[in-house]
Amino acid sequence: MAAKKVGILGATGTVGQRFILLLSEHPIFTIHALGASSRSAGKEYKDAVRWKQSKPIPDNVKKMIVKPCEAELFADCDVVFSGLDADVAGDIEMAMLKKDIAVFSNAKNYRRDPIVPLIVPTVNPDHFDLIPHQRSVHNLKKGFLITNANCSTTGLVVPLKALQDAFGPLSHVIVNTQQAISGAGYPGVPSLDILDNIVPHIGGEEEKMEWEVGKILGGVSENKNGFSLLENTIVSATCTRVPVLDGHFETVSVKFANGCPSVEDVCKALENYSSDAEKLQCHSAPAQPIVVTYDADRPQPRLDRENLKGQTVTVGRVRKCPVLDIKFVLLVHNTLLGAAGSSVLNAEIAVAKGLI
Amino acid sequence: MAAKKVGILGATGTVGQRFILLLSEHPIFTIHALGASSRSAGKEYKDAVRWKQSKPIPDNVKKMIVKPCEAELFADCDVVFSGLDADVAGDIEMAMLKKDIAVFSNAKNYRRDPIVPLIVPTVNPDHFDLIPHQRSVHNLKKGFLITNANCSTTGLVVPLKALQDAFGPLSHVIVNTQQAISGAGYPGVPSLDILDNIVPHIGGEEEKMEWEVGKILGGVSENKNGFSLLENTIVSATCTRVPVLDGHFETVSVKFANGCPSVEDVCKALENYSSDAEKLQCHSAPAQPIVVTYDADRPQPRLDRENLKGQTVTVGRVRKCPVLDIKFVLLVHNTLLGAAGSSVLNAEIAVAKGLI
Amino acid sequence: MAAKKVGILGATGTVGQRFILLLSEHPIFTIHALGASSRSAGKEYKDAVRWKQSKPIPDNVKKMIVKPCEAELFADCDVVFSGLDADVAGDIEMAMLKKDIAVFSNAKNYRRDPIVPLIVPTVNPDHFDLIPHQRSVHNLKKGFLITNANCSTTGLVVPLKALQDAFGPLSHVIVNTQQAISGAGYPGVPSLDILDNIVPHIGGEEEKMEWEVGKILGGVSENKNGFSLLENTIVSATCTRVPVLDGHFETVSVKFANGCPSVEDVCKALENYSSDAEKLQCHSAPAQPIVVTYDADRPQPRLDRENLKGQTVTVGRVRKCPVLDIKFVLLVHNTLLGAAGSSVLNAEIAVAKGLI
Amino acid sequence: MAAKKVGILGATGTVGQRFILLLSEHPIFTIHALGASSRSAGKEYKDAVRWKQSKPIPDNVKKMIVKPCEAELFADCDVVFSGLDADVAGDIEMAMLKKDIAVFSNAKNYRRDPIVPLIVPTVNPDHFDLIPHQRSVHNLKKGFLITNANCSTTGLVVPLKALQDAFGPLSHVIVNTQQAISGAGYPGVPSLDILDNIVPHIGGEEEKMEWEVGKILGGVSENKNGFSLLENTIVSATCTRVPVLDGHFETVSVKFANGCPSVEDVCKALENYSSDAEKLQCHSAPAQPIVVTYDADRPQPRLDRENLKGQTVTVGRVRKCPVLDIKFVLLVHNTLLGAAGSSVLNAEIAVAKGLI
Repeated sequence: MAAKKVGILGATGTVGQRFILLLSEHPIFTIHALGASSRSAGKEYKDAVRWKQSKPIPDNVKKMIVKPCEAELFADCDVVFSGLDADVAGDIEMAMLKKDIAVFSNAKNYRRDPIVPLIVPTVNPDHFDLIPHQRSVHNLKKGFLITNANCSTTGLVVPLKALQDAFGPLSHVIVNTQQAISGAGYPGVPSLDILDNIVPHIGGEEEKMEWEVGKILGGVSENKNGFSLLENTIVSATCTRVPVLDGHFETVSVKFANGCPSVEDVCKALENYSSDAEKLQCHSAPAQPIVVTYDADRPQPRLDRENLKGQTVTVGRVRKCPVLDIKFVLLVHNTLLGAAGSSVLNAEIAVAKGLI
Repeated sequence: MAAKKVGILGATGTVGQRFILLLSEHPIFTIHALGASSRSAGKEYKDAVRWKQSKPIPDNVKKMIVKPCEAELFADCDVVFSGLDADVAGDIEMAMLKKDIAVFSNAKNYRRDPIVPLIVPTVNPDHFDLIPHQRSVHNLKKGFLITNANCSTTGLVVPLKALQDAFGPLSHVIVNTQQAISGAGYPGVPSLDILDNIVPHIGGEEEKMEWEVGKILGGVSENKNGFSLLENTIVSATCTRVPVLDGHFETVSVKFANGCPSVEDVCKALENYSSDAEKLQCHSAPAQPIVVTYDADRPQPRLDRENLKGQTVTVGRVRKCPVLDIKFVLLVHNTLLGAAGSSVLNAEIAVAKGLI
Repeated sequence: MAAKKVGILGATGTVGQRFILLLSEHPIFTIHALGASSRSAGKEYKDAVRWKQSKPIPDNVKKMIVKPCEAELFADCDVVFSGLDADVAGDIEMAMLKKDIAVFSNAKNYRRDPIVPLIVPTVNPDHFDLIPHQRSVHNLKKGFLITNANCSTTGLVVPLKALQDAFGPLSHVIVNTQQAISGAGYPGVPSLDILDNIVPHIGGEEEKMEWEVGKILGGVSENKNGFSLLENTIVSATCTRVPVLDGHFETVSVKFANGCPSVEDVCKALENYSSDAEKLQCHSAPAQPIVVTYDADRPQPRLDRENLKGQTVTVGRVRKCPVLDIKFVLLVHNTLLGAAGSSVLNAEIAVAKGLI
Repeated sequence: MAAKKVGILGATGTVGQRFILLLSEHPIFTIHALGASSRSAGKEYKDAVRWKQSKPIPDNVKKMIVKPCEAELFADCDVVFSGLDADVAGDIEMAMLKKDIAVFSNAKNYRRDPIVPLIVPTVNPDHFDLIPHQRSVHNLKKGFLITNANCSTTGLVVPLKALQDAFGPLSHVIVNTQQAISGAGYPGVPSLDILDNIVPHIGGEEEKMEWEVGKILGGVSENKNGFSLLENTIVSATCTRVPVLDGHFETVSVKFANGCPSVEDVCKALENYSSDAEKLQCHSAPAQPIVVTYDADRPQPRLDRENLKGQTVTVGRVRKCPVLDIKFVLLVHNTLLGAAGSSVLNAEIAVAKGLI
């Protein structure tokens, strides 16, 4: 199979930089075009970017000329990954879609669109089933638009899905997040705000978490032309920013609609959970969507965020909750599985399903 | 009134250092004796301590000779404050009590003792009513033993008391803490564990929070010889350590037994809450036990921990909880109101009540 | 003496916030006017500022209306303190000066001006002697313009002056700085740049340090109409940014033109150094311009930056340098003595000298 | 060639953990034995260690039984790497040597021994020439003892060697270090000492740097039975600890005995420098011993410490020093090239030279 040509929108941002690291040596994708704002367009990538990754810029990307994010300039891409900010993502991604390009977006703009799948790759890849309908609506042959979830939502829904599969619906979820600064991009969080400090507010984040869970854990309608949102799982989120570089940490309490399973059964259900991403043998699929740790003081961001290349969710401290049923903590790498890593794995799934 | 002579046990530790700063210029207490381990005993304080406060050691304390923590050496103190570690606090504090000394302890050892009050000064100073009974059991004339609460419990119970007073009992509380490193003493948390990291476990902390609330918010029995623990308020706690120097931050969701009040009424109840500590005009009482902030991104540890000299609890982001009734976040200075500040205010209350 | 009315330019910035804290309860100055950019002008101060200090906004300032930085609006001020950014400070400060206002600037714009004194208050208050000449050039009656030094320069020149006074000229100085993030203002340093990191470059800082020392340690010309720059003291600076909130730390090696004194004599000279600021009994003058610490691991930013209200320089680890003569480390609070604190003390000196 | 069996002493410490990561998949070494204190001996490695690396414990090591560090238990090892603390390293390493084992030590104990080479692999692998003499003194057939340098010394001597090779001897070096916390091991630096702080003292570090340079940059005596220490290069060091996880940052000024080369020539000399480690095609040799960066704000610890797998020294900001001749900044990964990485590369060189 010839390598698929990919374009990266928002290539100079922090999510864009992760895309470049993930895709520069990818077995089925090859970086073909880089898009960024007009300020960067026309420059060599190395001159346009403020590179903030601990690995250097891949050599094959350094001298690529950055383009403006105009659809015609990406028309020869098989796939376009978007790490664009929400204020510009809406128009650009729609223009790309109209050019019949397969678009994988990290932006929030189309997550609530009734015909755009919101896919966490190890949770609901079956939502790709809606693509034929989306294509017919937009009159497309090969293009489509997929979004992945908010980074904190992503970490949460993987274990929720495992629990829902094993024990039936969850009625209530209370989640508290302690989120890494890389989630805010660059320059992002000023150091004066976060050194020796916590910021107890991230604009729109709680609303996203409380809403997105319902679409992701819900199903595709019978005739594959819409989504049935989960209405009986109520989520309450509080989101905070902490002085951690990478890795969103969350504490979670859940209540089951059909009665509380044992801690042992919960651990087993989490450990045994598997997804189509592995079954389809996708390159970026983690060996396990969930790693359960039994050490009392784990997971920790610095020690566990790179687990299974940052594509798994690490769950620990599973125990009874005196108020709801079960509580646990989790860690997700916010720019890998929580952002660029989800998009890339979603695209691999799409290839495996023959959609690209 | 002649100044009361005070002794400080564990004077070289981080809580002991806070006691020294609080008491070195106190209107009714004067530092009379310093106690520490045998390793420190016999040395001048400045040579025995590894001082870690941003204010220098008070001049009147620098050259005081540290004593071993033997009761006879503190017999001429009117009050003894204990910042001892739990592994030695039990025996030493009991020996002090038996010498008829008034002891204010920060250790956990006697918090569950059925005749020892567990007092947060702006919450339950009425628990001093049990002192006559305690004295009669131990056959004492002027001595007694009071403990203050765990630092995270302290931050939590102040708003819970305000809500309980205003709206009747709470049925359920879910709390998540993000605790400062100073809470672990010195050397305490290794920097390799906490820089760019979160540690999702603090030994025994969750159990303390879940239990202590019931004693503090419960009442004194009718004949003043015991405590009636609150049994119908169920607390679920998850405690984590974060890279913050001072100030424990908590996110809280509560459910009321008698129906959910409005957010406005909750804010009013928190703002209007007052305690005997202010009414008795105690020196260290905050102007308000609770400061409510309406800024979306407050309280923050670095900016708010010194509010009202660290003796108040700052509450913010009061809003509806989709799962329980109301959620909010709070900040408490863990070594001021959360430790030494509570002890000192408790002692001031005891003086005002004529117990010392 | 009636309180002097002061205006603060750049009142919403980090230096401006320090000015407000220093001046809101000052014995001889009273805050009369606040100036900021047109974006802030017209708003109440509390709504215009993003307050980042650990102490709250003083009540008497909260509701003051912020003005645009136009000279006529500050004409009734006895003194104007400027915390303006360099890109706007030049024109605004000159306009104020032309309005016959006494201006104390933190900006770099006029530091090299041949008739503008560059004054570190505990080092060279004799440079005020040039004011009559400056007034005659600009045809002023009561106005004048003074700048204070770069924050890192300030920390360095205080001990250099003490050494120069005691042992004659220094021939060579090598200095390395580790500077706090507050020096960059707000939003300033992005957290992604400084958490778990060092940034080995601060634009223009090394040049400032290498040049400013020569003007500050030099003298006023005999007829008081210019400065004789020190030409035989060569300074080499390397400046870095580190993850510290407040307090610039510097390591220094010096060579004396007239031979190397003993370590003991150096310590004595530093400890015994005094300046006119104390002799004039200025309110903000530190008891000692230099505090010498003999602890092997001090000064440390977190523990020593507040020494003597942040108006002293703390020097430690004085010892022989195998390459030059003597080496030591120092700490200066970068927004107190290193910025707003210098300006305020300079103004107090000017009042004491009858210039205001 | 059959894989060489290696033992790791101090296997549970932070340097030991790095040895395990470096050696668990090494082409010519295979981990055969793990040694640690009696407290750990007898346990499976995973139970004995407090693992603090971001990569997990290699599977082939998890269940190895840790041994006490007794020489007979390591007698079947071809090589022993020691990450022991100085207080026990002296006796244990000597006992291993007497058992005719090839020992590569990170401890300071034998660095000044007149017949023990102190080798930085990309600087002075020719010091292996002394091994025959060392063997004859100790009456050994295959064993020998090599130490590597202090982590900060290591970062410094690589560029010094390049400069010395290109421009002749250096007469003076002034170096200031900003060292990462991982250099102090675990638990190491308490977080209360380093969050929002700098500690301006690391016991013995400055003395090590000032002395070790002379042995490393000096030569082996003509008859290969001793070292000629460099006496005319005088080094002055100031060492500080900063809140960085990994990567020692240093600022350096140097003076050349034979006159100052141009900045361009210095950059060229640094970039073109090569060592026998690469020429011998050792597995862990970096492609370049020195990477020169021309970005004004680089190297930075978080972004550059992993350059060339942490085995290179990154040099930046090369420019004229107004006091000495040339100044620059550098970064070295303190537990890779600065510790375990040097030992492993030294051992690879020894194999390539036929000494093992």
